[in-house]
Amino acid sequence: MSDLRRSWVESANAPGCAFPLNNLPYGVFSVGGRRRCGVAIGDMILDATGLEAAGILRPDPDQDVLQAPGWNPFMALGKPAWSAYRAGLVALLSDGADEAVRPYLVSLADATLHMPFHVSEFTDFYASRHHATHVGTMFRGAEHALPPNWLHMPIGYNGRASSVVVSGTDIIRPHGQIIGDDGLLFAPSERFDFELEMGAIVGQPSRGPLSVAQAFENIFGYVLLNDWSARDIQAWEYQPLGPFQGKATATSISPWIVTAEALEVFRCETPAPERPLLDYLRPPAPMLYDIALEAVLTPEGGEACIMTRTNLNEIYYSSAQQLAHHTSSGCPMRVGDLLGSGTISGPEQGARGSMLELTWGGAQPLTLEGGAERSFLDDGDRVTLSGFAQGNGFCVGFGDCTGTLRGARV
Amino acid sequence: MSDLRRSWVESANAPGCAFPLNNLPYGVFSVGGRRRCGVAIGDMILDATGLEAAGILRPDPDQDVLQAPGWNPFMALGKPAWSAYRAGLVALLSDGADEAVRPYLVSLADATLHMPFHVSEFTDFYASRHHATHVGTMFRGAEHALPPNWLHMPIGYNGRASSVVVSGTDIIRPHGQIIGDDGLLFAPSERFDFELEMGAIVGQPSRGPLSVAQAFENIFGYVLLNDWSARDIQAWEYQPLGPFQGKATATSISPWIVTAEALEVFRCETPAPERPLLDYLRPPAPMLYDIALEAVLTPEGGEACIMTRTNLNEIYYSSAQQLAHHTSSGCPMRVGDLLGSGTISGPEQGARGSMLELTWGGAQPLTLEGGAERSFLDDGDRVTLSGFAQGNGFCVGFGDCTGTLRGARV
Repeated sequence: MSDLRRSWVESANAPGCAFPLNNLPYGVFSVGGRRRCGVAIGDMILDATGLEAAGILRPDPDQDVLQAPGWNPFMALGKPAWSAYRAGLVALLSDGADEAVRPYLVSLADATLHMPFHVSEFTDFYASRHHATHVGTMFRGAEHALPPNWLHMPIGYNGRASSVVVSGTDIIRPHGQIIGDDGLLFAPSERFDFELEMGAIVGQPSRGPLSVAQAFENIFGYVLLNDWSARDIQAWEYQPLGPFQGKATATSISPWIVTAEALEVFRCETPAPERPLLDYLRPPAPMLYDIALEAVLTPEGGEACIMTRTNLNEIYYSSAQQLAHHTSSGCPMRVGDLLGSGTISGPEQGARGSMLELTWGGAQPLTLEGGAERSFLDDGDRVTLSGFAQGNGFCVGFGDCTGTLRGARV
Repeated sequence: MSDLRRSWVESANAPGCAFPLNNLPYGVFSVGGRRRCGVAIGDMILDATGLEAAGILRPDPDQDVLQAPGWNPFMALGKPAWSAYRAGLVALLSDGADEAVRPYLVSLADATLHMPFHVSEFTDFYASRHHATHVGTMFRGAEHALPPNWLHMPIGYNGRASSVVVSGTDIIRPHGQIIGDDGLLFAPSERFDFELEMGAIVGQPSRGPLSVAQAFENIFGYVLLNDWSARDIQAWEYQPLGPFQGKATATSISPWIVTAEALEVFRCETPAPERPLLDYLRPPAPMLYDIALEAVLTPEGGEACIMTRTNLNEIYYSSAQQLAHHTSSGCPMRVGDLLGSGTISGPEQGARGSMLELTWGGAQPLTLEGGAERSFLDDGDRVTLSGFAQGNGFCVGFGDCTGTLRGARV
């Protein structure tokens, strides 16, 4: 486990700071004017677009890649360029460097954060053993909780890229087909839920099947991800072709891409497979990460209440295994593809990553600080996901992934 | 029913020509050099990119929209611009016009055709009553053939836009998880299939729910679509989250976008609903089309054999109803979204739109011309879809959607 790398940006050295020099996550920000690519350091953002334009730090000598409002052209350069750029940032920001880039620092507090990349396509997996067991038990009984294929492949479905929004975007309660007491209605969802996930971002294109090792190399970085879900719409629609409108309203992501390189020192094994995996899914090395995760619910005008504490290390199939499976049929992947981990739940009550599991399908409502009860989300509720990996005297944080549920449109 | 509009491009007036002046479909072509937008007329292509650059016919006076290799920027202009441009083409190409654009005609036979637009996202529906009944009977028995939701909503799933290819692209037999006699294997699919469909192309963005009438207005045009399917991979993976790798190898589309405006005179009703539809799915007018469809199989070195003859008018939910449902949760749509109709099957044996149905899951192999048998597709088999709407003394054709299956990579 590595130690804190000290920066001349003093706030980056503070205990508990999410964005020390060890992190250097990539985002898109604006301060009044146009959107720019930026790198978080302490409580500041380094204007990467400005550094490129000034010729101070250029990811590619031959073309501008940080002028577009997203990190996709940078990702397309490939892993050697990713590493070289990161090394350049470290050199500029390390304690003892000449602070020449100080004019390119902007206060995080003054900035508006935007989508950090263009989502080419969005796939969501179902790769937490405990989540799949909880949901399967509710829907099919304890004996048939895990589908027969679950221990043999990372089950996933294609989601809707157009619905991915950045943290801070309000979420509108959706309408849909709901089975009410008087039969079928088109009405606002009454069982609207969050899902605590992480998302992996594909940074390199591919056309044929990838090995797990190749897939790992192609993943650029990670974000927190909340796959908002209308459980009543989902329950009625999902047979036989899977989730559709129940998951199409919105998916929120955190605004900073934490790179695989920053997470390298936090790698860990997936849980031991309960059945032998087919060769194409076997990881050659630890490819998961130890990342502590939390979900907090804040009612409108009320107090924040921790709903869930869990860890990415619960996930049965890593993002690399998911990506390898995703390409197994020859499915082409593109720069900017987003792969959701699936809801991350631990075995304990307080480690469940959705209201569906926390309230056992609404049957056991939660009592919040102040006494209010919740089976699912109320209008005005804000859900905030956070996550960090803990080093020696520093942490690598993700920045919040937050969204407030607003009432259905009349 | 309207009559043939005569053109000074003589081949466009020939009986049975797919591309008379009544049609004017949009594609992307090249003749050696760079890709250009073009309009099919008779056995020629009118170079729309060239006409725009020369200032002869500009969809938008203020910007070039036909210089990009795809019709997306043109679609983004909206319906009044679509109509005005079509009227401009008709004026230039009508019998009696001055033939000034003759230098912009290229022989179709000399051209290579490319993807006519950028697919933003791809959704595939399951909207043929007979297809759903056939497949449901095979998988769940006759009593449970139609899922309970089927008569109440157009069931669909999100597909994979990156896998959509233009007609003529070879298809590589995929690997996947297959249950063999000795257990689970990672092996080439042994039950590889075609699916005869049509695809609707969304030409306008939207953010909230659309009525069926609004959805109809937002659809720019249609293509033929073959959603290649690995039935063995699909059967093992699809519970509980739907098709994934079994449908991710490739989806082929025909190279010409036939516009909704060209199809206007062929509008017809969907089949009478067997259950009342919720208001948000009720069409205010006929919004389906009468389009004859055919699928032909040609073994390598063998004779073409007609597998399927059916009609788009079999579809229970029109593309407008599908798009309205797609947006019901607030799902944002973008220019270039592609909506597959689902496999189109009639009730008769010869009207089934997939091998799965034609051979009843492989149990009743077909005998081809020359005596060869097929349960599913063999390496070297070419599948060609075609379609046309029949007017008075003319037809509006789609151009072939073809693909040849090549052996799995070792």
